[in-house]
Amino acid sequence: MRILITAGPTREYLDDVRYLSNASSGQMGYALAHSAIQAGHEVALVSGPVRLPPPEGCEIYHVETTDEMYAQCETLFPECDGVIGTAAVCDYRIKTRKPGKIAKTGEAITLELVETIDVLAELGTQKGHRWVIGFALESQDARFNAVRKLYSKKCDAIVLNGVNAIGSTENYVEVIDQSQETVATYSGEKSQVAESLISWVQAHIAGK
Amino acid sequence: MRILITAGPTREYLDDVRYLSNASSGQMGYALAHSAIQAGHEVALVSGPVRLPPPEGCEIYHVETTDEMYAQCETLFPECDGVIGTAAVCDYRIKTRKPGKIAKTGEAITLELVETIDVLAELGTQKGHRWVIGFALESQDARFNAVRKLYSKKCDAIVLNGVNAIGSTENYVEVIDQSQETVATYSGEKSQVAESLISWVQAHIAGK
Repeated sequence: MRILITAGPTREYLDDVRYLSNASSGQMGYALAHSAIQAGHEVALVSGPVRLPPPEGCEIYHVETTDEMYAQCETLFPECDGVIGTAAVCDYRIKTRKPGKIAKTGEAITLELVETIDVLAELGTQKGHRWVIGFALESQDARFNAVRKLYSKKCDAIVLNGVNAIGSTENYVEVIDQSQETVATYSGEKSQVAESLISWVQAHIAGK
Repeated sequence: MRILITAGPTREYLDDVRYLSNASSGQMGYALAHSAIQAGHEVALVSGPVRLPPPEGCEIYHVETTDEMYAQCETLFPECDGVIGTAAVCDYRIKTRKPGKIAKTGEAITLELVETIDVLAELGTQKGHRWVIGFALESQDARFNAVRKLYSKKCDAIVLNGVNAIGSTENYVEVIDQSQETVATYSGEKSQVAESLISWVQAHIAGK
């Protein structure tokens, strides 16, 4: 198979220096890319700014903003069999980015944030015969929100992890499929969780 | 001498996942810490989240927000001979941090940003016989703004660098002292620039 994987955070700039982001380290996505290659698949990895070397044998595409991530994925997706979206994209961008660096004046600043494009939901609408696996990071009503995302993003399965997964080397995940049930759980080092998830995808999704 | 050095970015959270920050890698501050130790000084390094190992022999204090950086510096400064402030602190924080992770609703969000404490300016008011060296990153009217900061933060000298210094392994800096003149310029790898700056501090500031 040829698998598209998104990883890392995106950044949404307020001016040329300051941005909104999150502490996503990219580890889960890079570990999945590594495991998929080890299992004999081709991987196109679209990554936000992280400090990880791409796995050997992996096509890597570096992006910064959510729009850039979507543009790259839109180009790559038609030639892939499926996508695994682990990226912790900024869901919001600053409506009006200022040039240069905003100088301090002693005054408060009011920022308007608008939602960014939903990368995985857009790929979901374009999926055709391809499969889509999402990741959900929820702080409350976790399963309910994960199932909601499974449908709204047209996912074949969604992997639910907690807020403390961000930046950590370990993870505890639940895989929820279109039955709305948790059909698998994995925990441990992200490298091990990744290997289990790739096996699960091969067994339950790729052959559908 | 015992030198306090601040390095890296700070983060100001919007909720438990998303934050405002910048791409500061911490390289300049860590390189200065290394050079100062090589030159026989003690260093207390207060660092925002970066992915660099602290230089050998360096006391390291990890912080995340600007308030945390200030609290740590305020504790350490009385026992130091001077401070070099390279940290790219978030100048703004979100007025009301939300618990959990704000869920998308399709609506825009309005954020109010208020200025954070100015770490170096606060240390400047407490400096007494100690010396203070600031870094300024300016996108326009660079020298004018650097001199303004030199005075407002009660610095003995200010090191001016451009917006493209952030995250880069190289740097071009101008040292401006209380004469308001550029008294030294250095360029090249940040490690080399750091060595030159420590020599300059020893020769022109520490013995004042």
